[in-house]
Amino acid sequence: MREIKKQELPVLAIDLGGTKIITALISNKGQVLTKEYHLTLADEGPQSVINRILFAIDHLLSLSNIDPSQLDSISIAAAGAIDFDKGLITSSPNLPGWNDIPLRDIVKGKYRINTLLINDANAAALGEHHFGAGKGVNNLILLTLGTGIGGGIIINGRLYSGQCGSAGEIGHTTIDVNGPRCSCSNIGCLEVLASGRAVAKEAVRRIRQGERSSLTEIVEGNIENITAEKVSIAAQSGDSLASEVIMKAAFYLGVGMVNLVNIFNPEMIIIGGGMAKMGDLLLNPARQVVRERAFQLSAGAVRIVPAQLGDNAGVLGAAVFAFQQEMD
Amino acid sequence: MREIKKQELPVLAIDLGGTKIITALISNKGQVLTKEYHLTLADEGPQSVINRILFAIDHLLSLSNIDPSQLDSISIAAAGAIDFDKGLITSSPNLPGWNDIPLRDIVKGKYRINTLLINDANAAALGEHHFGAGKGVNNLILLTLGTGIGGGIIINGRLYSGQCGSAGEIGHTTIDVNGPRCSCSNIGCLEVLASGRAVAKEAVRRIRQGERSSLTEIVEGNIENITAEKVSIAAQSGDSLASEVIMKAAFYLGVGMVNLVNIFNPEMIIIGGGMAKMGDLLLNPARQVVRERAFQLSAGAVRIVPAQLGDNAGVLGAAVFAFQQEMD
Repeated sequence: MREIKKQELPVLAIDLGGTKIITALISNKGQVLTKEYHLTLADEGPQSVINRILFAIDHLLSLSNIDPSQLDSISIAAAGAIDFDKGLITSSPNLPGWNDIPLRDIVKGKYRINTLLINDANAAALGEHHFGAGKGVNNLILLTLGTGIGGGIIINGRLYSGQCGSAGEIGHTTIDVNGPRCSCSNIGCLEVLASGRAVAKEAVRRIRQGERSSLTEIVEGNIENITAEKVSIAAQSGDSLASEVIMKAAFYLGVGMVNLVNIFNPEMIIIGGGMAKMGDLLLNPARQVVRERAFQLSAGAVRIVPAQLGDNAGVLGAAVFAFQQEMD
Repeated sequence: MREIKKQELPVLAIDLGGTKIITALISNKGQVLTKEYHLTLADEGPQSVINRILFAIDHLLSLSNIDPSQLDSISIAAAGAIDFDKGLITSSPNLPGWNDIPLRDIVKGKYRINTLLINDANAAALGEHHFGAGKGVNNLILLTLGTGIGGGIIINGRLYSGQCGSAGEIGHTTIDVNGPRCSCSNIGCLEVLASGRAVAKEAVRRIRQGERSSLTEIVEGNIENITAEKVSIAAQSGDSLASEVIMKAAFYLGVGMVNLVNIFNPEMIIIGGGMAKMGDLLLNPARQVVRERAFQLSAGAVRIVPAQLGDNAGVLGAAVFAFQQEMD
């Protein structure tokens, strides 16, 4: 019987988001062997969420009938700013109370195997680069348009994570210096203008000002239940307020991408996250802004495409990250 | 007598700017063996400038008493957007009429040796990385604050030049989506808000509106002769209008650097170009904006420093670029 090499063992990958925790067992070929969802219940605070993460790991191990020694490693993609060296989530707009939480060492302490922590959008960039829309593309930027906006940068085929592991915060770049304050405390960030939260907020604002929209019926009068997804549905049914709100977000997304195109001259920009489901309704007007405003050579060189891996991107990317660390 | 290896020959490096052409002979140790200045006289149009470049090369060769076969290569850093593969200057705000000019092949055709073309700020980044403020720093961004604003990106110790060689146009990223139109046709770019041209223009605008400033005496009433350098001199002599104009540019520079810090989490940002001579007068308020607005971990990790090589950065970087191409 030949010896099983360490690299042939699967990675237990976790995608810790503001809404759900995904756990998955990923083979070194990028196959998702097992996958489960749990609610994050972020409002209950860090200790409660950490307990749920540990439970989720236990559950996946028991479901797969393996123990930690049969894993290559545990790799966690988390929705927040990461201090890679220290293994901390330093802050997170979507995980209230997560300030300098040593999640890597908490998990490592319990399972006693190599554990890694990476930003979720960075992980998604790695995932899409290896298995999705960015296969074979050396220089690409991924934007996750969800409640917030995350980013990941692949340069020369490798994740670029910066000096401390916190590169890629493209959602938190100012494009309107006189704009609204962002949750990160910076001003006029792409996130506060073009995220799912921004879309919902703008629709609510306009309806509260007395404008008419089919969204009011869709949420049965509970305006605060409007989400970006519902705005998208309304726009596709011909609602003009909803369409205008999405066009406005698409314009800001386009301006943000002009900046990326002029800075990176990338081969590809991949748009993931919940809002990517809007497809060309969102992407076409944003592409138009890039064509009109970015340097012509760079604008002509970039393909702006939707992500392909859906909510597998984070766990797949976390697994790639773990396998790559070992090769270095 | 031992054979002289090709890499031991010097590079003839050229820095083609909107105002002057610098030619220099650079050894593979980064020594500037000979150096000359010529006026660009950009307004005379491309053919006239090309003739002056060829004359400048001839003159340097004759001064150094060598012929082209004794060169490693000719490497040109130019103030414009570059198509690296085709060796074109595709456009340039500071070289009127330079659209798709095949400068690389024109020079190569005459001297029949390996010739390279690189953006001037990209070259300056390479120069500062190898011989200046960024020695030993793996991840850095250089901004040249001159008449315009250029940028260069060093990642993992190498120049990142993107898909077509046109990465690094950081001066042409929107930070004020409702701001003035930039010479690149994009809106509210860093360049149109924080460059030398922007500083001079803002001072002129305010004085024309009737505000008082010692600048009026400095230029003997010829308001249109106000330059960023003169604004800096006036500010250092206590002129409050001049100080306010510089503070405003410093604020926008800070906002631009917040974006770079959040995107790149770099170890260093180097500020070069004519405006860098303002030193802490410009840099301190800009650093303050970074501390207040960027992600804390990344803001704490970055050093924002002035460039060290002065106007040698371009020719030194062009030489590094040539030597590196051969090693690949």
